[in-house]
Amino acid sequence: MSENLLAMSPINADQVHLLTDLNVNVVTPQDLNKTLAPADVTILYGWKPDIGNQLLNTTNSKLKWIHSITAGVDSLPLATLAQKNILLTNASGIHATAISQSVIAYILHFVRSLDVAGKNKQEKYWQPATEAVPSTISDFQYVVFGTGHIGQQIGRLLQALGGHTIGVNTSGHPVEYFDETVALNQLDDRVWKADVIINVLPLTDETHHFYNADFFNQLKSLFLFVNVGRGPSVDSEALINSLNDGTVRHAALDVFETEPLAQTSPFWEMDNVVITPHNTGLVRHFKKAQLELFLPNLKQFLLDKTFKYNQIDLSKGY
Amino acid sequence: MSENLLAMSPINADQVHLLTDLNVNVVTPQDLNKTLAPADVTILYGWKPDIGNQLLNTTNSKLKWIHSITAGVDSLPLATLAQKNILLTNASGIHATAISQSVIAYILHFVRSLDVAGKNKQEKYWQPATEAVPSTISDFQYVVFGTGHIGQQIGRLLQALGGHTIGVNTSGHPVEYFDETVALNQLDDRVWKADVIINVLPLTDETHHFYNADFFNQLKSLFLFVNVGRGPSVDSEALINSLNDGTVRHAALDVFETEPLAQTSPFWEMDNVVITPHNTGLVRHFKKAQLELFLPNLKQFLLDKTFKYNQIDLSKGY
Repeated sequence: MSENLLAMSPINADQVHLLTDLNVNVVTPQDLNKTLAPADVTILYGWKPDIGNQLLNTTNSKLKWIHSITAGVDSLPLATLAQKNILLTNASGIHATAISQSVIAYILHFVRSLDVAGKNKQEKYWQPATEAVPSTISDFQYVVFGTGHIGQQIGRLLQALGGHTIGVNTSGHPVEYFDETVALNQLDDRVWKADVIINVLPLTDETHHFYNADFFNQLKSLFLFVNVGRGPSVDSEALINSLNDGTVRHAALDVFETEPLAQTSPFWEMDNVVITPHNTGLVRHFKKAQLELFLPNLKQFLLDKTFKYNQIDLSKGY
Repeated sequence: MSENLLAMSPINADQVHLLTDLNVNVVTPQDLNKTLAPADVTILYGWKPDIGNQLLNTTNSKLKWIHSITAGVDSLPLATLAQKNILLTNASGIHATAISQSVIAYILHFVRSLDVAGKNKQEKYWQPATEAVPSTISDFQYVVFGTGHIGQQIGRLLQALGGHTIGVNTSGHPVEYFDETVALNQLDDRVWKADVIINVLPLTDETHHFYNADFFNQLKSLFLFVNVGRGPSVDSEALINSLNDGTVRHAALDVFETEPLAQTSPFWEMDNVVITPHNTGLVRHFKKAQLELFLPNLKQFLLDKTFKYNQIDLSKGY
């Protein structure tokens, strides 16, 4: 049987042949119920809840594989997929370059005092240089929560800049680009005394509100908190309190519990916070990059129903 | 004869022994005419015009070596030093880490759209992410004028971030961390079509107002101009015109023709310009770092009156 791939995420017209050459039939949502019955979709490229859930509920559905074009898969019904034996892959890695560059941008913004320079510029104030000696990367200790593709790229760039990197993952196993690693359930002073904490953890039951008042209260004096993972991993109210009382001196936030961020959010008015609109992971020429990531997995799948990389463990959620 | 070193730049009290252990007599400006006659100073550690010029004009001066604690030596009377056979070394390299980190901070600020994010924050505007896809480092071409210590560190970091680097130096000779090099007197489209130009050239007769209207008018459309070299290398009026007419879209300036930058300077009010107060080269623990750089040269000088590194060619000025 040849595969029927439903492209929920668009594929460039001049690249469709890369799939049809592999004898894969490519259809779009408009083709459903016309040239193809929903039950005959075998591969879903990109997830959207309406059509996605509809397919999952279709009697005699032949759906075998969903490819998410994001790294986070917390919006998919993982338990249902597990029950129906539907495989799931994600686009982890495709965002790593872009996200890691934003993380370095945030860190250097505060480390090299560009925040102070921005305030002084508004007042046309030339601060005597001797009163304004910026720090350098090696003055600080960095802890990255999450040591997957994105975390590793962050670690690599921090090391290139002379930083000492500590990675946090489930078991504390060593990972390239981290000088040390710590297990998530055995956090110690290396974390509590860190200067910069960067969150790239996936959102799961365990990481929901992981960064709460208990967490922030254990910190000695955090120079910078960066969230480029998921908004709900952070208890916003707790972070706002810590930013106000000085436990956390600066924050750079790309993701929030509610997006778009409400006009009433205190974050907007905080001088010591950088806000970006959940755009650090976006990639120009995204469709092309996405398909290039997908193709080797498709070839492997056609061969033996396995994947080269990026298969999600449905019980873990990443 | 043992050497008499006049410390114009202070040396930490707990490090003076590193010099006296080498049988070097260390004096401060207050000791002059008291414990030591000005004519007996043989080494000047740090340059200040008043006492420096006084020593140079002292009859029978035994001054043999001046060590500048900055990288730029344009404020010293090079012709006089050449005439009197006085050797000159500088502190090139000591600032490279700090300056290169600021350069990356400036570049990522604009490449990752933190400038846009800052403006949106003031208006509490959550820009739809699809309208705000930032660039990444590899989207641009980088030209670094000056391939010495500082230029090489900038090149190294840009390459680590995936950037293509072009270095400009006197002869166009290859230098580590640059994918290509161009000779200063043979600039071509690789420079004129660049996206980001970074100046770290020393200030000499040749580089005074090197970046003038003629230069800027040859550019196609420069995304970012960075000056962390010397202020007078840039004709400010020409740069302001180019920023206004869009030939140069953004600038990050640490140095200016006149410092402190006058309140009346148009740069202060330009939205697309980052201003720092000539502080990117400053280093914390500066005295310690400075002495560590100086010591190997001192040991070599005591041995055979040569230097391990950083000797200035007085006819070139760098």
